[in-house]
Amino acid sequence: MADWLPTLRTATPEEGYALAVKLARVAIRMTQPDAAVRERLRPEYAEDSGALIAVSQVVATHFATVAAANDYWRGAP
Amino acid sequence: MADWLPTLRTATPEEGYALAVKLARVAIRMTQPDAAVRERLRPEYAEDSGALIAVSQVVATHFATVAAANDYWRGAP
Amino acid sequence: MADWLPTLRTATPEEGYALAVKLARVAIRMTQPDAAVRERLRPEYAEDSGALIAVSQVVATHFATVAAANDYWRGAP
Amino acid sequence: MADWLPTLRTATPEEGYALAVKLARVAIRMTQPDAAVRERLRPEYAEDSGALIAVSQVVATHFATVAAANDYWRGAP
Amino acid sequence: MADWLPTLRTATPEEGYALAVKLARVAIRMTQPDAAVRERLRPEYAEDSGALIAVSQVVATHFATVAAANDYWRGAP
Amino acid sequence: MADWLPTLRTATPEEGYALAVKLARVAIRMTQPDAAVRERLRPEYAEDSGALIAVSQVVATHFATVAAANDYWRGAP
Repeated sequence: MADWLPTLRTATPEEGYALAVKLARVAIRMTQPDAAVRERLRPEYAEDSGALIAVSQVVATHFATVAAANDYWRGAP
Repeated sequence: MADWLPTLRTATPEEGYALAVKLARVAIRMTQPDAAVRERLRPEYAEDSGALIAVSQVVATHFATVAAANDYWRGAP
Repeated sequence: MADWLPTLRTATPEEGYALAVKLARVAIRMTQPDAAVRERLRPEYAEDSGALIAVSQVVATHFATVAAANDYWRGAP
Repeated sequence: MADWLPTLRTATPEEGYALAVKLARVAIRMTQPDAAVRERLRPEYAEDSGALIAVSQVVATHFATVAAANDYWRGAP
Repeated sequence: MADWLPTLRTATPEEGYALAVKLARVAIRMTQPDAAVRERLRPEYAEDSGALIAVSQVVATHFATVAAANDYWRGAP
Repeated sequence: MADWLPTLRTATPEEGYALAVKLARVAIRMTQPDAAVRERLRPEYAEDSGALIAVSQVVATHFATVAAANDYWRGAP
């Protein structure tokens, strides 16, 4: 996982949101490094509305950081 | 889902709130891309007060970001 | 629900807190638009301490935004 | 409950923390206005570690707001 | 509990973290003032991974406040 | 655990993320100092999607602080 986060800058808000999703996933991968276990858990939480909302909460927290890092893309059109 | 987030700027606080709701939903869609599964889950969480409050929490987090991006609509009347 | 959020400015911290409560409720209303269902859920969560605390958390998140939008009412006495 | 929040300014960090605790409680009171019900719930959550931690989370969120409003009491000794 | 929080300033990030842990605990103590009850609850949550993670979340929220209050200890080496 | 947090500055966003993970873990270690208990709990939460997402939430909160402390690594390429 070397060099997975060179910068928080993104060209657009959409790319910033995608980065937030990635940031949310990496902590899960670091806590559970076994890909087979993660694959086994995936269908479980992907069909659990509580888990889906909780993932969305993590993404929201990271998106706040990424958006601030990009000065909210104020220079964009 | 191309170009779903061109900017965080909105004309009014209301539109900013609507954008926050959208931002909360997109992460769920990205984690569970199957629309049929999401439709199946919907009635379940829409009648679960805990899930409704959790959704509201995600919206609150995104609204903070959107509001900051718009400098709290201070220029608005 | 047109024009429910013309501004984040309020005259006092108390009105700001009331606005935060409103902001917390609107997301629930948008996710569960059926007023009859919401009325049915109300007694359930209003007597559930976990749900009450979770509502208070959402209000706290929105209050942070509203307070920042009002520059913490620093001009007030 | 008129005039319960005249200002977010406090003389000391301790008073700011006490205000955060108050801010956390008011949302619960607004959501469950019946004092008798709240009294009934109290022993339940006061002996539930999950609920106690959740209350502490709400206080932490409000304390962040109160601390910012007081510029972190930087002028204090 | 008089004078438990004279300032948010700390000499180092480590001391700031310790202060965040303290801030997280005080709200629990205020909500459950009975030390005997808290002692009874302690082994329960100290062996519950969900509770441990929730405590860590509260600490994280307070650490954000303490770090901001200390301007992130930028003057430190 | 002396001197575990000399600074919040890191050279890169990746190192900042690693620091956020560390910050999340320390609170757990402080609340449950017994390493044997923590080892016993580990497999439990590492295979629980809810716990993994909750850990990710704590990391997200600390990452926001670390990123702000580093001015979002704006000087980096």
